[in-house]
Amino acid sequence: MTEIIKNVVIVNPEMPPEEGWVMIKGDEVIKTGSGTPKEQADVVTDGGGGWLLPGFVNTHGHAGSSLLRGAGDDMPLHEWLKNVMWPNEKRFDKNMVEAAGNLALAEMIKSGTTSFLDMYHLHMGEFAEKIDHAGLKAVLGRGMIGFGNADEQKGKLSEAENLAAAWHMKGNGRIRIGIMPHAPYTCPPDFMLKAAEIASSNNLLFHTHCAETSEETEEHIKRYGLHPVDHLNDLGIFDLNVLLAHAVHISPAHMDLFAEKHTAVSHNPKSNLKLGSGIAPAAEMMRRGVNVTIGTDSTASNNTLDMVEEMRMAAMLHKGKEENPASTAAEDILKAATIKGASALQFPDTGIIAPGWKADLILVDTASPHLTPALPERAVSHIVYAMKSTDIKSVWIHGSQVMKNRELLTLDEERVLFEADKQAKKLL
Amino acid sequence: MTEIIKNVVIVNPEMPPEEGWVMIKGDEVIKTGSGTPKEQADVVTDGGGGWLLPGFVNTHGHAGSSLLRGAGDDMPLHEWLKNVMWPNEKRFDKNMVEAAGNLALAEMIKSGTTSFLDMYHLHMGEFAEKIDHAGLKAVLGRGMIGFGNADEQKGKLSEAENLAAAWHMKGNGRIRIGIMPHAPYTCPPDFMLKAAEIASSNNLLFHTHCAETSEETEEHIKRYGLHPVDHLNDLGIFDLNVLLAHAVHISPAHMDLFAEKHTAVSHNPKSNLKLGSGIAPAAEMMRRGVNVTIGTDSTASNNTLDMVEEMRMAAMLHKGKEENPASTAAEDILKAATIKGASALQFPDTGIIAPGWKADLILVDTASPHLTPALPERAVSHIVYAMKSTDIKSVWIHGSQVMKNRELLTLDEERVLFEADKQAKKLL
Repeated sequence: MTEIIKNVVIVNPEMPPEEGWVMIKGDEVIKTGSGTPKEQADVVTDGGGGWLLPGFVNTHGHAGSSLLRGAGDDMPLHEWLKNVMWPNEKRFDKNMVEAAGNLALAEMIKSGTTSFLDMYHLHMGEFAEKIDHAGLKAVLGRGMIGFGNADEQKGKLSEAENLAAAWHMKGNGRIRIGIMPHAPYTCPPDFMLKAAEIASSNNLLFHTHCAETSEETEEHIKRYGLHPVDHLNDLGIFDLNVLLAHAVHISPAHMDLFAEKHTAVSHNPKSNLKLGSGIAPAAEMMRRGVNVTIGTDSTASNNTLDMVEEMRMAAMLHKGKEENPASTAAEDILKAATIKGASALQFPDTGIIAPGWKADLILVDTASPHLTPALPERAVSHIVYAMKSTDIKSVWIHGSQVMKNRELLTLDEERVLFEADKQAKKLL
Repeated sequence: MTEIIKNVVIVNPEMPPEEGWVMIKGDEVIKTGSGTPKEQADVVTDGGGGWLLPGFVNTHGHAGSSLLRGAGDDMPLHEWLKNVMWPNEKRFDKNMVEAAGNLALAEMIKSGTTSFLDMYHLHMGEFAEKIDHAGLKAVLGRGMIGFGNADEQKGKLSEAENLAAAWHMKGNGRIRIGIMPHAPYTCPPDFMLKAAEIASSNNLLFHTHCAETSEETEEHIKRYGLHPVDHLNDLGIFDLNVLLAHAVHISPAHMDLFAEKHTAVSHNPKSNLKLGSGIAPAAEMMRRGVNVTIGTDSTASNNTLDMVEEMRMAAMLHKGKEENPASTAAEDILKAATIKGASALQFPDTGIIAPGWKADLILVDTASPHLTPALPERAVSHIVYAMKSTDIKSVWIHGSQVMKNRELLTLDEERVLFEADKQAKKLL
């Protein structure tokens, strides 16, 4: 099937916005041009003069806990874990996790996310099935806390490996599997090494939380005599394809190591702020050549899965922290939220709009006061500093439209919201 | 005229959300209740189960520069002023300032702002007229840079006083006038004293920028031997009704002075971040009893006038800076954005939903993934941490509806956007 999306302003970072059109065949963009297309296609969509940009890539989250949005805020981390997260998660049944997953998918599509990473410990196979059906692209991993006896450890690692056997590269390559031990402070070194072995032998992304809070980082140093980054390095982890979540409490030497080892970082500024974890040195990492990408973390600590909000925060926060408005540039943040994220998640040909690249596209309606003056010269600025995710009218992933005029085409939104409310009430 | 808004969840900070209804007569709420109303009214509006909350109060902005949204970002402050702000503002004609003002009013109503403060140096009388017609509440002031010769100084002060004579307390008290010298570093002490004299003798709010950047603060100390706050205090300014914008670079002693003198602060976290000014100690000010309110500043440095975004930033930023998730509570931030702001702007009976209080109301549609689970218990959390301003469906100010199902009733939105685009193109 072919589709032309005409009458749009094509916005790619580092290229001048172009008033023109895009032609899709199968899962790819095969042609773009200025002005009005002469080509024919099975479907022609008029973009109404809106901005067409690459879909967002959310590089860190936990969709399964989406029902906990707003269940507890503004409390010290340990109190929050002890009184909100752990007791609620213990009560999660399969229906609740399913409702949470669907809610996350609906929220992500509606806010322009076309690819994401998800680490969770419950029902990941079922979630993969749902994602495949909904049409998104995802890297999924069985989240593993490495405490417990040998049998428990083995069970978790087997689940992770079985998930890969069942789902890696399925859905025309839209579904990938990663190996995701929770964090150095919750996974003993021998467990980390076993996880690394699975990642290495199956050529899978290795993803873990790292140096999120100062407490956990200091505790790790006390226990092992090494900063968690140095510890992971000693274990040889960075010779794998690695994406670290957070990296808030790290040194310039760690940044240089990431740059050298091509270790990517998922910067989650809102979650880090909300949990009081701190402000990651993301601008400095970018200056030192680290592949900094952007993630939301879960709605339990954010409280949205909105990459537009997350880009805005990433673009503004470091300017204030460093007292330098030039710390981050809008274009670099847009790249972090698109092509850089896609590269970290190992999705090939994803993250820009060009022939031969995957047709992961979002269409922005600019007819609103907050995007006016809607001059194409200001498109990148407006996308990072002024747009709201609700301005996104339509979304395509691998060439298939999944949202049209804000109506979800692959999920029954009304039912998803109803079910999420119903399941959440079981927690009250 | 009377109106009942039924089938809503009434959300006031510090009160449990109540499923019920609100009755308006004239400009006030005269009754509220649980369940279904038995009362009759001229108009009955069904809120569809949405959340009804007090309108937002934006305590600092410059509507006249709205056409500069996205005209220049990510550059050092001086370069931005020299290459973006000053040359553009020099070219502003009356049509451009009018288009900018209308654009700001449209954006504010659509994002739930019902009262605001505006400091600008051009065509403030015309802006007052427009605000009166659009139905908003505002404190307006002729922005004054105090350099120049005696005649220039006198001219500006006369304009400020004439604006008060023409507009203070007009529009059934919706329009107030303040005296607004730009900043201690741009207004010599004798000019400040003359401005203070006008504020005092007319009982008007005194509003000025203060300690926004470290450079300006240090320069002030070099020139006068005093921190700008101490300097203003020496001049007796804090014996007036004062609202300071920014207060980023201040000490605990300054905070205690503000608390003692009932000096309010407009916290503008996004503008302070974006311009690289820093992070104001807003959480510490709140702990020390200062009336901390929230403002957006202008779209030239924000780049939106969205109080929902601004609340979110104020609620998250200080947790991360202080590495303490309990630094700010959602309820306190909602108060800062409503009743605290109204008090600072001297709007009486404004900022909560209760009999005898002004009917400044916004209705939120909760039927979206990002507000689900939409449990009333989580309303305050969702408003601060998850809502988007586009969820606001309807807005009332002083009992008159100004937006209905996202359609502006007192402004022609299409024309406002067209005119803003057209006028902005004159700057290219």
